Amino acid sequence: MKKLINKPENFVKETIEGILLAHPNDLKMANDNFRCIVRADEKKSGKVAIATGGGSGHLPTFLGYVGYGLADGVTVGNVFASPSAECMYEVDKAIDNGAGVLHLYGNYGGDIMNFRMAADLCEMDDIKVSEVMVTDDVASAPKGSESKRRGVAGLFFAYKIAGAAAEKMYSLDKVKEIAEKTVSYTRTMGVALTPCIVPEVGKPTFTIGENEMEIGMGIHGEPGINRTELKTCDEVVEIMLNKIVEDLPYVNGDEVAILINGLGSTPKEELYVAYRKSHDILKNLGISIYRPYLGEFATSMEMAGMSITLLKLDDELKELLDAPAYSPFFQQLK
Amino acid sequence: MKKLINKPENFVKETIEGILLAHPNDLKMANDNFRCIVRADEKKSGKVAIATGGGSGHLPTFLGYVGYGLADGVTVGNVFASPSAECMYEVDKAIDNGAGVLHLYGNYGGDIMNFRMAADLCEMDDIKVSEVMVTDDVASAPKGSESKRRGVAGLFFAYKIAGAAAEKMYSLDKVKEIAEKTVSYTRTMGVALTPCIVPEVGKPTFTIGENEMEIGMGIHGEPGINRTELKTCDEVVEIMLNKIVEDLPYVNGDEVAILINGLGSTPKEELYVAYRKSHDILKNLGISIYRPYLGEFATSMEMAGMSITLLKLDDELKELLDAPAYSPFFQQLK
Repeated sequence: MKKLINKPENFVKETIEGILLAHPNDLKMANDNFRCIVRADEKKSGKVAIATGGGSGHLPTFLGYVGYGLADGVTVGNVFASPSAECMYEVDKAIDNGAGVLHLYGNYGGDIMNFRMAADLCEMDDIKVSEVMVTDDVASAPKGSESKRRGVAGLFFAYKIAGAAAEKMYSLDKVKEIAEKTVSYTRTMGVALTPCIVPEVGKPTFTIGENEMEIGMGIHGEPGINRTELKTCDEVVEIMLNKIVEDLPYVNGDEVAILINGLGSTPKEELYVAYRKSHDILKNLGISIYRPYLGEFATSMEMAGMSITLLKLDDELKELLDAPAYSPFFQQLK
Repeated sequence: MKKLINKPENFVKETIEGILLAHPNDLKMANDNFRCIVRADEKKSGKVAIATGGGSGHLPTFLGYVGYGLADGVTVGNVFASPSAECMYEVDKAIDNGAGVLHLYGNYGGDIMNFRMAADLCEMDDIKVSEVMVTDDVASAPKGSESKRRGVAGLFFAYKIAGAAAEKMYSLDKVKEIAEKTVSYTRTMGVALTPCIVPEVGKPTFTIGENEMEIGMGIHGEPGINRTELKTCDEVVEIMLNKIVEDLPYVNGDEVAILINGLGSTPKEELYVAYRKSHDILKNLGISIYRPYLGEFATSMEMAGMSITLLKLDDELKELLDAPAYSPFFQQLK
C-alpha cells in the first residue's frame, strides 16, 4: 500500500487536523469534535443552513464544499463509511440560523438512516430540517427508478446552487425546491481504470485487468454497467455522454453546465482531452455549454478514471450557478 | 498504459484544444499555434510581460499559470520535452507591452538553450528580454551549487510574486530583481512513490519496488538522494523539511509560505496529513507559516508522491503573495 500516511486508523483524524491547521479562518469544529466541521465565518441570522456529510476519501467532497455560497457544515465519516447521526445532529445545531437546515447528501443507505435520525433529534429541539438526496449516477439504476440512484460528482452542482440560494436568504422550502430541481436536471456517468486502497483495509477495493476499464463504476468501486477492454478517450466519452444525454433527455437547444471530474490519479491533461470530445458531441446535438468545470471535485482516493456530469440550466439555475462561492477547496470569483 | 487518451502523438495537441475550448475568455493562441498560448484579456500598455514554458505533463505547471497576476504567455512542449525557440519568440512578441519580457522558467538544459535563442531573436526586434531561472530543488545539487539546481514546484511562487509585481507596473529590472529574490528564498524537496508513463513512450519513467520510495526525485523521474523502504508520512516530512530548512537556512523567527504539492495520484487527504506534521516541525523551530498552499501545483502526470516547498517572506514578498491572481487553473481571491 503506497500511501503517505501514518497509522491507517488515524488517517481521517490526521487529515482533518491538517485541514483545520491550514484553514483556521475558514473551518472549525463544532462541539470540539473533528468529525463535526462548520464554517468559521460569522453566522447570518435567518439564513437557511445547509448540512452535508458522508464517508471520507472523496475530497473535495464533502468537507471541501463547506464555505460561502456552498454548505455550512459537514459530518465526517471514516473512509467510505457513513458518519454517525449524533455528529450530524451536532452539526445541525451548530449551523442553524433560525431558518432551518437542509440535509443535502448523496443517496447511500447509511447516510440516509443517520441523517434521518439526526433530523428526528433536531425536531425535538424545534430545528426545522428538510432533506434533498442527490441521485445523479445514471449507471446505478435504470430510468424510471431515478430515486434509487447513487449520488456522485453531481453533488457539487447541488451544493453550488442550493448554497447560492441560501445566501440569497431564500426560505427553507424554496432552497429545497431549487435543490430538487437541480438534482432532477443532473446526470453523471463514471469510468474507472484502476481501484483504490482504503487505508484501514490495505488492499484494492476491486480487481481489474491491465487492459480493462469499467464504465459506470461508482465512487466506492460499486459495479458499473460494462467492463470492457481499454478504449480511446473519445470512445469512452461518446459512450458516457450518450447514456447521460438520452437519460434526462437533454435536447437540442438546451444549455448545460458540464463537470469533467477526475477520480484521483487521472491527470488534468486527460480531463481536457475528454472535454474536447464532449464539447464536440454536445455541439453536434445542439446542446450548448454555459459553463464548464474541470478538475477533481469528487474523488475516490487514488482511483484512476473520471466522471462526466451534465446539469441542464434555466435562468434561475444560471443565476445561482454564476454566484460567487468560496471555500478552501473551491473558489469561484465570477 | 491505462490512460484516457487517443493517439499518444496527439495527446498534447488535444489537451490544448480542450483547454482553449473550455477557457476561451482566458486563453488564446498566438500566431495560430497551439504551442503558443497567451492571456486572452486586454493587454496593459507598459506592463512587463512574463513568459514561461517547458514540457507538458505538469499541469497546472506551466500553462495553468497564465493569467491575471501571474504569467502572460507560455510555450508548450511535448510531454517532458522543451518547446522550440521559435515558439517562445512568437509568445514574446505576442505578450510584449513595450516594457520588456521576463523569461521565467525552470532550470533545464533544453529550456535554457531555447529561451536564450528566443531572447536573441527578440533583441533583433528591439524587445528587451531578461531571464530568471527557478532553481528550487534542494536534492538536485549540493549547497554552494544552487544555480545548478532544477526548477520544480517552487516555480509557482516565482509566477505568483513576479506576476503581482508586473501587475503593479514595476519595471523589468525590478520584476527581475524580485523574482530573483523569490528564487533565492525558495527551497523544495520531493518524494516519489510510483513512476508515471509518458504517452508517447508507453512505459514507466523508472522502476521502483512495491515497498520503496525515492526521496529527492525530480518531476521527470530524475534520481533523488535516497531510495528507501516505505516510511510513514511523518517520517518522510521530517526528512524532507530538515533538508529544506538547513539549506537556506530558514531560522527561528522566519515567516514562510509553504506549498504541499501533489505529484499526480496522491490524494489531497495525504497532503493534509503531511501539512499537519510540517506545521508541527516548523512551529518547533520557531518558523511561522504565513500562508499555506495545498494541492496539485506541479505534477508529473500520474506519479504518486509529493513535494514540500518553503518560501521565506519579507514585507515586500508578503504584499505580492497576497495580491489577487486568476487563471483557469489557479484563483486567489484574498
